Amino acid sequence: MRSARPHPARTVTVAFLGAVMVGTAILLLPVSRAGPESPSLLTAFFTATSAITTSGMTVVDTATYWSDFGHVLLAVLTQAGGFGITTIATLAGLLVSQRLGLRGRMMTGVETNTGLAHGDVRQVLVLAAIVMFASETVIATIFATRLHLAYDVPLGQAIGEGVFNAVQAFNNCGFSLRSDGLTSFVSDWWVCVPLTLGVIVGGIGVPVLYEIGRQTRRPAAWTTHTRLTVGGTLVLLVAGFVAVLGFEWGNDETLGPLGVPGKILAAFVQGTIPRSGGFNTVDFGAVNEDTSAIIVGLMFIGGGSASTAGGIKVTTFFLLAYVIWTEVRGEHDVVIGRRRIAEATQRQATAVALLGVATVATGTLVLLAMTDGVPFDRALFEVMSAFSTSGLTTGLTAELTTAGQLVLSAMMFIGRVGTVAVASALALNTRHRLYRYPEERPIVG
Amino acid sequence: MRSARPHPARTVTVAFLGAVMVGTAILLLPVSRAGPESPSLLTAFFTATSAITTSGMTVVDTATYWSDFGHVLLAVLTQAGGFGITTIATLAGLLVSQRLGLRGRMMTGVETNTGLAHGDVRQVLVLAAIVMFASETVIATIFATRLHLAYDVPLGQAIGEGVFNAVQAFNNCGFSLRSDGLTSFVSDWWVCVPLTLGVIVGGIGVPVLYEIGRQTRRPAAWTTHTRLTVGGTLVLLVAGFVAVLGFEWGNDETLGPLGVPGKILAAFVQGTIPRSGGFNTVDFGAVNEDTSAIIVGLMFIGGGSASTAGGIKVTTFFLLAYVIWTEVRGEHDVVIGRRRIAEATQRQATAVALLGVATVATGTLVLLAMTDGVPFDRALFEVMSAFSTSGLTTGLTAELTTAGQLVLSAMMFIGRVGTVAVASALALNTRHRLYRYPEERPIVG
Ligand SMILES: [K+]
Ligand SMILES: [K+]
Repeated sequence: MRSARPHPARTVTVAFLGAVMVGTAILLLPVSRAGPESPSLLTAFFTATSAITTSGMTVVDTATYWSDFGHVLLAVLTQAGGFGITTIATLAGLLVSQRLGLRGRMMTGVETNTGLAHGDVRQVLVLAAIVMFASETVIATIFATRLHLAYDVPLGQAIGEGVFNAVQAFNNCGFSLRSDGLTSFVSDWWVCVPLTLGVIVGGIGVPVLYEIGRQTRRPAAWTTHTRLTVGGTLVLLVAGFVAVLGFEWGNDETLGPLGVPGKILAAFVQGTIPRSGGFNTVDFGAVNEDTSAIIVGLMFIGGGSASTAGGIKVTTFFLLAYVIWTEVRGEHDVVIGRRRIAEATQRQATAVALLGVATVATGTLVLLAMTDGVPFDRALFEVMSAFSTSGLTTGLTAELTTAGQLVLSAMMFIGRVGTVAVASALALNTRHRLYRYPEERPIVG
Repeated sequence: MRSARPHPARTVTVAFLGAVMVGTAILLLPVSRAGPESPSLLTAFFTATSAITTSGMTVVDTATYWSDFGHVLLAVLTQAGGFGITTIATLAGLLVSQRLGLRGRMMTGVETNTGLAHGDVRQVLVLAAIVMFASETVIATIFATRLHLAYDVPLGQAIGEGVFNAVQAFNNCGFSLRSDGLTSFVSDWWVCVPLTLGVIVGGIGVPVLYEIGRQTRRPAAWTTHTRLTVGGTLVLLVAGFVAVLGFEWGNDETLGPLGVPGKILAAFVQGTIPRSGGFNTVDFGAVNEDTSAIIVGLMFIGGGSASTAGGIKVTTFFLLAYVIWTEVRGEHDVVIGRRRIAEATQRQATAVALLGVATVATGTLVLLAMTDGVPFDRALFEVMSAFSTSGLTTGLTAELTTAGQLVLSAMMFIGRVGTVAVASALALNTRHRLYRYPEERPIVG
């Protein structure tokens, strides 16, 4: 009976591995490369993995290494990877919703409310596509217009850059057509605000967008998932903004030289981006240690479920915060806004978060063991960036050996595909024993 | 009704704060100081906190800064702190055991088996005292004999050093009467083995020692708590040994210059010590980045519950590993050796571990924000060492500003007293609502 079920974990893994292989093959063609030499297999593989997982990490300079054809291909791979992961995660959510919904009604009368329960598959996917194309069109239009009018970029090139950056922003990826990233636009509100809003909307997730679309006027009727995601996102945006602004205010290499409006804009952008858009308007190799530590934390949390963002997800993080708060208060039920959180869901959140910690810790150790002279904090930053598909870098990635690049590729893949696969597998797991063992309570702490 | 209950959390906090104040006052007396100057208030406070919490972190050179009187006082404070925390934690465990035992039998027939349920208070405390004095006597005798016979140390001084180091070892503290710590004994089996075994026995915890003492011949009858602690400790000892041996084998500043037996001995010692004895036979400022990362992890895990070791505790860590394993397998009950782990205990373990992560993350951030030019990895190492009361140092602590020293003092206190207070408070928490809200299952991951 078990084997006859659809297996989202296996499906998503195979689909993404296939996409990486196709992307690698096309990037290996001479036409993808600017200049006479062919790309190395490792470079093509790393870049394809980075695009498909919407990380945006690079081992070469995207602007000069790849041809125009290569740039179009990167945009297509990014778009395919971003749309692929959001729709697969959404379908897995629907599957869980429906199965639990059926069983729930039959067995316990529990409502499963993930926000998707009322929608059918086609309706949800159509909405996801509409939001994506609409957002990208708006961003591309504003960006291209600004480039053309304020920076004298020729119209054709401006449109190309506009579309490329819009795709990168909404899909929370981080490739850039300029060798200095977006650092030359650090004080440009017309460029930064649309891109950053695109990152936020893309990173909210389909289930939340769907529910907000259906019930805009009644936030009180939102599901717990939507309220946790929206509230948690706001908290993290403010936290990131305040941290970057406060810690980098006087840093000569980042916010220091900017005027107050420029500081505010840059802090808004760089406080938002770690979860998990990848473009940078300041140099992440130059931020202070404390800012770096905050960014590593934000990367780990990431964005919304079934979104283009990575990390363990906003709901996972805040749900665990509620679990702790409940324990400290001595309550039994974990209650969020008059809704009790299922114990199975609490355990899933614990498993997702701790598996994430274990993955990042293992990846950092392997990277340190395989390289010489890499400081711990930089290794952790790059591994966390890869795992959370944030794509930010302190500059280390480009210097890594083959082994190091393979470790980061694995981290990107596990972080992007693994978390969705594991989470949906956990949610669909339903094995029960027919007997129970006697209970014990070991001392903890 | 709630206010009439005994309050272990408050009791233990007040008792330890009081002990720190008394210790600080006596250390401030001129008689405690070697040389004419009085110690500064901050130095006395930091050192008293370090001794009472059995950390062994230092901001001055213990050997030359304090007088003989000061050294005796440090041994007394260490002993008081170590015996205090183990007995208070044991009493809290008994309280939980008895209350849950009563309620369990009345309501659900659940056995609470923490290994203490069969003992009365006096019996358990007497055992704890006997194990402590016996262990310390054996260690002190071997150490003093060795110093006198092999190193020509005068008998009186050898006995003094023997007793001091025995107290430090069993209480998992790390003060040293020699400015170079125990690095001159790195290849001496007669010195290293007894001290390290003392650290292990002291770090196992009273409940486990009590049960092993009662049921030595029947490990199959041990409670889950004892089996988890003993098994987990063995796993961590092997892991620490293998990691230090493998990563430091060729490091010229640590194991490199030693012969193979010396390498094995040093790896055994320094793989054991991070959880959470504090003495060092190699220089922790010179270990590789990967070794350092492993050590940070081992410090976080720590030793057994109700022991002289710190950290989130062995049972907490392995219990969470079982929770994840259960989730991944799709089982519902968390089963360890034919015993089901109570869901309340799973949630306590989650809360203890995540509060630990939050505390260390906050402490590291505060330390970074309050200091200039401290690298992230060294800040994390020192904060983790303080939180887990390991007392190891990369050399940073002695260079810290006043603010930095206060942060580490707070970390030692929270790590030592806070985890026990929180864990016992959680275990005793029993508030119930008379109504339950409808259940929801937000998407995680
Ligand atoms: K990204
Ligand atoms: K210690």
